[in-house]
Amino acid sequence: MEINETTLKELKTKMGVIQTEFMQKKIPIIAIFEGWSAAGKGTVISQLINRMDPRGYNVFSIEPELESRFSPLCEMYETLPPYGNMSVLDGSWYTRTVASFVREKISTKQLNELCQSTTDFERALANDGYIILKFFLDIPKEEQKKRMDELKDKKSTAWRVKEFDEYQNDHYFEFKECYETVMERTDTAFSPWIKVSATNKQDAVYSIFNEIISAIERANAAKQVPQYPFAQNIPTEPTKGLDGCDLNAYLPKDEYKGVLKDLQKKITKLQTQLYIKKIPVVVAYEGWDAAGKGGNIRRLSSALDPRGFDVIPIAAPSEADRAHHYMWRFWKNLPKSGHTAIFDRTWYGRVMVERIEGFCSEAEWKRAFEEINEFETYLAKQGHVVLKFFINIDADEQLRRFEARRDTPEKSWKLTDEDWRNREKWDVYYSAVSEMIERTNTEQAPWHVIASNDKSYARIKVLSTVAKAFEKALDDA
Amino acid sequence: MEINETTLKELKTKMGVIQTEFMQKKIPIIAIFEGWSAAGKGTVISQLINRMDPRGYNVFSIEPELESRFSPLCEMYETLPPYGNMSVLDGSWYTRTVASFVREKISTKQLNELCQSTTDFERALANDGYIILKFFLDIPKEEQKKRMDELKDKKSTAWRVKEFDEYQNDHYFEFKECYETVMERTDTAFSPWIKVSATNKQDAVYSIFNEIISAIERANAAKQVPQYPFAQNIPTEPTKGLDGCDLNAYLPKDEYKGVLKDLQKKITKLQTQLYIKKIPVVVAYEGWDAAGKGGNIRRLSSALDPRGFDVIPIAAPSEADRAHHYMWRFWKNLPKSGHTAIFDRTWYGRVMVERIEGFCSEAEWKRAFEEINEFETYLAKQGHVVLKFFINIDADEQLRRFEARRDTPEKSWKLTDEDWRNREKWDVYYSAVSEMIERTNTEQAPWHVIASNDKSYARIKVLSTVAKAFEKALDDA
Repeated sequence: MEINETTLKELKTKMGVIQTEFMQKKIPIIAIFEGWSAAGKGTVISQLINRMDPRGYNVFSIEPELESRFSPLCEMYETLPPYGNMSVLDGSWYTRTVASFVREKISTKQLNELCQSTTDFERALANDGYIILKFFLDIPKEEQKKRMDELKDKKSTAWRVKEFDEYQNDHYFEFKECYETVMERTDTAFSPWIKVSATNKQDAVYSIFNEIISAIERANAAKQVPQYPFAQNIPTEPTKGLDGCDLNAYLPKDEYKGVLKDLQKKITKLQTQLYIKKIPVVVAYEGWDAAGKGGNIRRLSSALDPRGFDVIPIAAPSEADRAHHYMWRFWKNLPKSGHTAIFDRTWYGRVMVERIEGFCSEAEWKRAFEEINEFETYLAKQGHVVLKFFINIDADEQLRRFEARRDTPEKSWKLTDEDWRNREKWDVYYSAVSEMIERTNTEQAPWHVIASNDKSYARIKVLSTVAKAFEKALDDA
Repeated sequence: MEINETTLKELKTKMGVIQTEFMQKKIPIIAIFEGWSAAGKGTVISQLINRMDPRGYNVFSIEPELESRFSPLCEMYETLPPYGNMSVLDGSWYTRTVASFVREKISTKQLNELCQSTTDFERALANDGYIILKFFLDIPKEEQKKRMDELKDKKSTAWRVKEFDEYQNDHYFEFKECYETVMERTDTAFSPWIKVSATNKQDAVYSIFNEIISAIERANAAKQVPQYPFAQNIPTEPTKGLDGCDLNAYLPKDEYKGVLKDLQKKITKLQTQLYIKKIPVVVAYEGWDAAGKGGNIRRLSSALDPRGFDVIPIAAPSEADRAHHYMWRFWKNLPKSGHTAIFDRTWYGRVMVERIEGFCSEAEWKRAFEEINEFETYLAKQGHVVLKFFINIDADEQLRRFEARRDTPEKSWKLTDEDWRNREKWDVYYSAVSEMIERTNTEQAPWHVIASNDKSYARIKVLSTVAKAFEKALDDA
């Protein structure tokens, strides 16, 4: 196809116009540029953004072989655009994964697991309205060699050819085979791969522009305005999720201090081992208001080196949180290798408060169960220790504690009107919690329902569960 | 002094109580822990946060010798707590700077400049209500050696002693001398150094607790609630800041395209050189509404590799922005080495719109001039190319452009009611702008006032100014 300057200029202008539409309609777009080194990704991206409003996009450069202490998808979470924005990715976790595989740093099994998790991740985004387009810029081995030689010949461009690029050309066919496998496994209707011949760069630019513009046009046309507020959704019958938790469980006061100290010492030692072996840990805390989450978390965290853990308190989502997929604020707080992230309330808010109060649609909270299971499976498969605690009390115990807080001046700030309002909905929450536990109690990430009418018992129970999980992870490592 | 368990427990509890106060009063606190390796920083931090609410603090671990592509203070900006929060820093830029000096990676001149910039930075924070406490945990050389040997003797702790720690012990007295210089130069009333003997760890913990608690108590007592909204402040007489800009300046249409292409090619080449030499660039754009900033920026950015620059559009501050020092959103967008950050509107908002509309107090915008000059001096001394453009048109030209936007359907979204409201205050803004330019036109970061009644002229003028600055930076490098 003949491309002339005018046509390209028209496309650029169209891109600028269409951008004001997706910005206004709050559609988020992810354009991933993959392909061979020297295929011309930089040129394509330059053209693409040429007429775009800088308030509406961000370009990210992903180094192909940076050693990272974060899991592969975790890095991608950082590049996630807010609604109405576009992320342009020069390289992505795909390059890194393919390079790791060719250099034999990861196995076929790990490669396949990563492909599965990526597809799950991309589906979750697409369901939330993200447009995802993945371009592979293709050139033959000889063409790549030729372009790299030309770059190396000139003093001003020689630095552009890195060790990695030469390695890739030397192992072109191993890379090709791996790319093909990965692309086949992650090619979906909601996140398609588009292979583009980049031997002629202008042709490549032209077809990429057309793909992006038509995808956005389709999305613009289809976009529906959500109907706020959503209907509140109240499950009527509790399932068995919270059964089998004996709330009378209790630990004699005189035993508590000794057992606590021993367990904390044990956890301190085990965490050091996890740190050395670079195993990351995710601890999720849920539970009733006044169930004793705070004190429980403190008993755990004071056994950990403060330089190796973060407590992430989850309250109402901020402005930035609301401008992204609901999982974003959790994704971006995942731990580095060897570190521990303790979430004080979690992503389960989606199927509890957000469901019950109508902060999300029925379709949204319904698919959240699957998305959450996929997310936790990803963490487990990527070597994270995943621990989920539901700190459980009964309604009478909650009332006693609320009254005690109300009547104790230095604790009264802990008690809000909202706590009382939530308490009125105890039965509704009970049903939602039991359904949640049933549907997300997976082998990779089982729930631990912790009886906490006796706080001492609950603390010891959590700490011993943590210690056991740490030991198991070290044995398996 | 005798310290027993009970006293320590009381201090921890007091810390927990006092925290609810500084959270409610929105006081931000920075506690920096510096000192010798193996002095017990981890232990102190553990104790400090033991009874604190995790919603109110964050612990940051700063590696002493990480190679970073960001300038030293830029790293610290990341650890800045929001109002009402506390950042606990295990190590800081101080460790890194001292280590760089001892290992002869930076000169005495650079060390002194960094000390000066840090003091400026800490003063700006303190003026904004931040409490800053810097602890130096001191142990003698022999004690450090002894502790490290003990760690190395046990298999479970040997990994804790890093190459850097041994180097530090071997060069103890060089480190000591450098630390003393740095501490002397950065010890101020608003950001004091507190040297603590850490030979006995419990004594150290005790005195650190007392220092922190009393500093917070003093601040709690002194804290005044700001009186919103502040009085609007309108300078009456324009100074000479905008004089000497000939708005009739004009470039013949037939010359524009050729000159533009040549300049863009030149800038592309120069930026590649800057990238190789790892020189970062900061470009600040200010100007009247409809002066043509957007188009001007695009002519510059399309000459740059999209993987090497970011355009940072500055609109009304977000929730997160408002929870920090007003410079925070600029600090956190500073470029990596070799990269370019283009700010579309800037920190000068403080002395224009915020001043005029009363979004900040008189004291705040008045000291902003100095803070801005210090900030830009820091950037320049740290090797950034700093370019500031004020895109200038007259009131008649603005009216013509507003009317053209209003009457052109695909451009009308660019024009808002606020633009018309701002236009009514043209004279007031004119005076504020001219004062701003006079007071912040420094040798390190001079203003370029760009006549833009003819947009083509303005674009060429900016590009040639950029090219010249790039050439100069490369010559000086």
